[in-house]
Amino acid sequence: MEGLDTTSIVPLYKQLKDLILKQIDEGILKPNQKIPTEQELSELYQISRMTVRKSLAQLVDEGILAKKQGKGTFVQEPKITEDLSNPGSFTNLCKRNGKVPGGHTLKFMLTEATDRDIRELQLETGEQVIWIERVRLADNMPVMLENLYFPGHLKNILTENLDDSSLYQILKEKYGLHSGNSVMEIEISECNSYEASILEIKAGSPLLLMREIVYDQYDKPLHRSKSLIRGDKFKYISPRMNVIKSEK
Amino acid sequence: MEGLDTTSIVPLYKQLKDLILKQIDEGILKPNQKIPTEQELSELYQISRMTVRKSLAQLVDEGILAKKQGKGTFVQEPKITEDLSNPGSFTNLCKRNGKVPGGHTLKFMLTEATDRDIRELQLETGEQVIWIERVRLADNMPVMLENLYFPGHLKNILTENLDDSSLYQILKEKYGLHSGNSVMEIEISECNSYEASILEIKAGSPLLLMREIVYDQYDKPLHRSKSLIRGDKFKYISPRMNVIKSEK
Repeated sequence: MEGLDTTSIVPLYKQLKDLILKQIDEGILKPNQKIPTEQELSELYQISRMTVRKSLAQLVDEGILAKKQGKGTFVQEPKITEDLSNPGSFTNLCKRNGKVPGGHTLKFMLTEATDRDIRELQLETGEQVIWIERVRLADNMPVMLENLYFPGHLKNILTENLDDSSLYQILKEKYGLHSGNSVMEIEISECNSYEASILEIKAGSPLLLMREIVYDQYDKPLHRSKSLIRGDKFKYISPRMNVIKSEK
Repeated sequence: MEGLDTTSIVPLYKQLKDLILKQIDEGILKPNQKIPTEQELSELYQISRMTVRKSLAQLVDEGILAKKQGKGTFVQEPKITEDLSNPGSFTNLCKRNGKVPGGHTLKFMLTEATDRDIRELQLETGEQVIWIERVRLADNMPVMLENLYFPGHLKNILTENLDDSSLYQILKEKYGLHSGNSVMEIEISECNSYEASILEIKAGSPLLLMREIVYDQYDKPLHRSKSLIRGDKFKYISPRMNVIKSEK
């Protein structure tokens, strides 16, 4: 076993940190694998628990390791990162993150608009919506349950095979519409038993709930969506260019 | 007790929905209060369980009610909403959301920079950082645990009383620096026992973890932050102005 070098000018906590990073890099430690306890690492490398604690704290802060309450410290599987300022298709997102994309359409139907549909899609009472529910897979694992609602007058999209073509492609070809501005909302939500069964997790697990209203090039609502996202698989980044305010 | 009107043209599910909204509005149903079960509502208002289910599903979808796995359906406390594209101070955020802001500084010290500090704040190895940890209160309830890290050379801010003045005010007055661009990252995280004790929740509870690097007007890192946010109290919105891409 590789040891630490007590004669080196590199601090011991840093040596242990680098050693763990190397073991992850080389696949000796695998994603979701439990690492030895502080006590075990301290004995293994003949260093103080304080030193071990410092190494692990930094690796947790870096998102390399994750502490699970009452269970131990684990190698964190890297999360798929979506850039909110420049969202692409799920397919591209997966590819950029080295995952194989997949998915199934679970619902694709015309249905009665809810009050939320009427408000957000600016419909009249009694109008219908096209409801599309689909589950998204990354490396064959369900990671996102997506519900999309389009105004009912776009019902020609119902004749299309969603699995073969992109919705936006269809909207552009059939209606000359493309997406413009949008408003996004993100929060934590507990999943119910239906959502849990689709996402293959325990009912009541915390998920990221993302809602969006997407407008077309004329600033008319194009669709709304509600996505339930496995928080253990995804994170979101958002760069912000600050508009400098007047200097009072 | 107010009943439903079977002779009305307003559908029964809509009448029940409006009735529940009215009871919430009038304070008859209070935030976090459990509402009757489907079965009970069905008997109470002499309507089918299907109709009750439809009302409740829409109220859950609207974020007015929340289903808790194995516990029932509850009146959801409105979440504090922060606009990511225009973040203000915590004080203003609370005021806009009708909450009384508060807080304590838990740590305010010069300490050794971690690898993350060195990378994100563009420091030299061996440099120090100013570490500020504070808990933020809304209506006297801890809602956010904030850790801020500033480059050590800004150490004059250590002589200030943070409780009385805004950090940004101090940076502007002492150093002529103000915030410019930033990069934000958001994900779900499980809180550890220390974080749980500060936020007065159970260890292992899911939290929103937000990390930010804020740059100054010269695009040099001004600080980084790591905030743990109670997901049951906060949500985030982000409007996005789409830059229309070339039409190929």
